[in-house]
Amino acid sequence: MSLIVQKFGGSSVANAERVMNVARIVTNTYKEGNDVVVVVSAQGDTTDDLIEKAMEINPKPSKREMDVLLSSGEQISIALLAMAIEKLGYPVISLLGWQAGFVTNSTYGSARIKKIKTDRLKNEIGRKNIVIVAGFQGVCKYDDVTTLGRGGSDSSAVAIAAAMHADRCQIFTDVEGVYTADPRKIQNAAKLDEITYDEMLELATLGAQVLNNRSVEIAKKYNVELEVLSSLTRKPGTIVKEATQMERMFIRGVTKDTNVARISIVGVSDVPGIAFKIFSKLAAKNINVDIILQSVGRGNTKDIAFTVGKGNADETIDALSSLDFLKDTKINCDTDIAKVSAVGAGMESHPGTAAAMFEALYSEGINIQMIATSEIKISVLIDARDADRAVAAIHGAFFPEE
Amino acid sequence: MSLIVQKFGGSSVANAERVMNVARIVTNTYKEGNDVVVVVSAQGDTTDDLIEKAMEINPKPSKREMDVLLSSGEQISIALLAMAIEKLGYPVISLLGWQAGFVTNSTYGSARIKKIKTDRLKNEIGRKNIVIVAGFQGVCKYDDVTTLGRGGSDSSAVAIAAAMHADRCQIFTDVEGVYTADPRKIQNAAKLDEITYDEMLELATLGAQVLNNRSVEIAKKYNVELEVLSSLTRKPGTIVKEATQMERMFIRGVTKDTNVARISIVGVSDVPGIAFKIFSKLAAKNINVDIILQSVGRGNTKDIAFTVGKGNADETIDALSSLDFLKDTKINCDTDIAKVSAVGAGMESHPGTAAAMFEALYSEGINIQMIATSEIKISVLIDARDADRAVAAIHGAFFPEE
Repeated sequence: MSLIVQKFGGSSVANAERVMNVARIVTNTYKEGNDVVVVVSAQGDTTDDLIEKAMEINPKPSKREMDVLLSSGEQISIALLAMAIEKLGYPVISLLGWQAGFVTNSTYGSARIKKIKTDRLKNEIGRKNIVIVAGFQGVCKYDDVTTLGRGGSDSSAVAIAAAMHADRCQIFTDVEGVYTADPRKIQNAAKLDEITYDEMLELATLGAQVLNNRSVEIAKKYNVELEVLSSLTRKPGTIVKEATQMERMFIRGVTKDTNVARISIVGVSDVPGIAFKIFSKLAAKNINVDIILQSVGRGNTKDIAFTVGKGNADETIDALSSLDFLKDTKINCDTDIAKVSAVGAGMESHPGTAAAMFEALYSEGINIQMIATSEIKISVLIDARDADRAVAAIHGAFFPEE
Repeated sequence: MSLIVQKFGGSSVANAERVMNVARIVTNTYKEGNDVVVVVSAQGDTTDDLIEKAMEINPKPSKREMDVLLSSGEQISIALLAMAIEKLGYPVISLLGWQAGFVTNSTYGSARIKKIKTDRLKNEIGRKNIVIVAGFQGVCKYDDVTTLGRGGSDSSAVAIAAAMHADRCQIFTDVEGVYTADPRKIQNAAKLDEITYDEMLELATLGAQVLNNRSVEIAKKYNVELEVLSSLTRKPGTIVKEATQMERMFIRGVTKDTNVARISIVGVSDVPGIAFKIFSKLAAKNINVDIILQSVGRGNTKDIAFTVGKGNADETIDALSSLDFLKDTKINCDTDIAKVSAVGAGMESHPGTAAAMFEALYSEGINIQMIATSEIKISVLIDARDADRAVAAIHGAFFPEE
C-alpha cells in the first residue's frame, strides 16, 4: 500500500464535469489500495474573477486582505471535489490550509511554507478518508490566512508529499508531461519520459509553466519523486527525479518566457558596494531578480541591467528611484522582451551548444540583447515579437526533423 | 466612546458601489469616535450560486462539505469590505469565523454558537482597527468550519455585541425598520419606533424576515439593544429592547409566512407516549416543529397535525415513515399553505383580538385550517393563495385607514 499525493490545477476542476473526472481519477487510485491526499487549485478563472472584484473597489488593496479574498477560491473547489467523491460513494474529507497544518511565514501574497503539522492529515488518512486539501494557502504565526503566490498549489502538493513521506507526487495538468518545447507551437516537440530536478528547475523558472519552480526546489530538497501527467488522457507522464540511471540527452528543451521586464541603470558611479545596495533593496521588497549584467566600467561610471517579472517592474522602478546614490543615473524599463532558453544537463560537456544556439538565432536575423549562462542552461533576451521564431529555430537546430 | 456592532446583509454588499456605501457608513461611525465591529453576509446571490454549483455535482452533499463551500461567500465579502475601508484611509482588518473566535457545536448547516473567544477581537479593537467579521460561520471542536444556517449573520452580530458588551447592535437591511405589515403590500403599514424582544421574536419567527429569530433570542438573553435600520437611507430605524417605558400598542404587526408545510398523521393509536416518540424523533434530526395540534381521541385513534419549514418536509415524512408504530396511519403533507399572524404584547389583555381577526378572515371568505395562540400572538394556517388578502384584511381591522 502506498501513499500517493495528487495535485489538480484550476483547469482540471473548471466545471462540474471535470470535477467528476478528477473524482474518478482519485477514487481509482484509492480503489487500488492506496492512501490518497489530493491538492486542488481554484476553479478555472475564479482567481482572476476575484482579483477583478477587488480592483473595482480598491486598485491597491493590502496583500493581507487579498489573501483572505483569493483563498476562498480553493475553499470552493475542495468542497465541490469532496462532494463529487461522496457521490461516488467513497469516504472523503476536505481541509483548508490551516486545517491541513500549513504553517507559512507572514509574507502575504507569496508566503513560504515553514512546516506542515501533519496530525490531522495522518488522523484522516488513518480513518481511511480520501483527504482533499486546499492548495496555495496556509496560516502564519498571527493566525492570518496567507497564500503562496500563483502556482503555489504545486508547492502545497510537494510539501505534503515530503512531510508525509509519500511514495509519489502526481501533478496533473492539461499537457501529457514535459516536452522539449511547447508542443502547441513546435511540431516535432517530444515528450520526455524522465528529467532531473535541476533540469526541471531551469525549465520551470524559464516559463515552461508545467511546474511551479518552488515546488521543484522542495521536491529536490526532500527527494520527492514527481510525475507530471495529464488529467484528461490516461498515459504515463514525465517523471522528475534525481539524476541516476537517466539516459543523457544533449539538451532537454527550449522554452520562452515573456513575463520579463528588463531594467537598466545607466551611469552608476563605479565605487564598491553599489550592486549590494541595489539588490538588497529589491530583496527587502521581495522582488526576485533574474539575469544580472554589469558592464565593465567606463571612466567613473558603469551600467547595470537586470530582469524582473513584469508584475514587479513598477515596484522596482519606485524602489530604485528612492535610492539617493542613483539620483544622477538614467533608469530604463523595457517590458517588450522575451527570454528564450535551452536547458540540458548534458550541455556543460558540449562547448559548442552556445555557438549552435547563437547561430540559429543569427540565421533568423534575431538580435540578442542579453546573454546569461549556467552549467545546464543558456538564456538570451530578445525582442518579444521574435520569441516564437527563436524557439522554433533553436529547437530545429537541436532536434532536427527526421 | 462607545462600541458599536453593525451588521450588513447580502443585498447591502451586493456590488462594488454598495460595498463602498457600507464602508462610508462604517467609517462615519468610527470617525465619531466609536469602536466598530462589522459583521457581513455573503454578497447578493452568492450563496444561491454556490448551492447551485454543489447541486450540479451532488444533489445530496454532506452538510460538512456544504459548510466548507458556503462559508467562502462571507470570506469574499469581508475581504472586499476591508479593501473598501482601506481605500477610504482607515485602519481595518477582516476576520473569518474561526479567527474571530466563534466556537459552535457540530451541527453542520445550522450550528449554534457556544461561545466567542474574544481575545483577537479585543486585540484588534485595542489597535484601533475597524474589525470586519465574517457572519454566519464558526468552528466546532473538531476544527471543522460550521455555518449557523440562513440568516445566521444576525446571530453572529448579536453574539459579538453580547460577548463584547457593545453599546448597540445595528442591523442594517433594505427596509427602514420593523413595520406593522409588509410595506410593499399594505399601503398604510407603519414603521414602529420601538418593539419588545418578545414581539420581535414572534414577528421574526413568523416570517417578517427582518431579523433572524435566533438573533433576537440571544439579544433578549443578554439584553443587547438592537436597532433595525436601512443601509440606503440615513433615518433612525426601529429599536428592539426590553419592555420598560414603551408605549403599549394593541397589536404590533401582521405577518405572513409561506415557508410552511403542514404534516398530518391520521389514525394514530390513542396510547400514551406517542407524541413524545414522534417529536423526539424529529428533534433528533434537528427538524424544528412549529404549531402542533392533536385532535381529541375518537375511538382508539386520534390525529396529530403540525407544521415544519418547507425544506424539512421530505425529511419529516421519511422520519415518520421509519417509525414502526405509525405504520397503520395515513401521513399527509400540504405545502400549499401560509401562516398569517397578528402579534402584540398588548394582546393578552384584549380578549376580543382573536374574534376580530377571525371576523376579518370570515368577511373575506377565507377558510382557517389550523389556529394557534400564544400570549402575544394569534396564528392561523390558511391556503397560500389567500395569504396576501388575509394580511390586508387583518391589518385593515386593526389599523383602520385614517
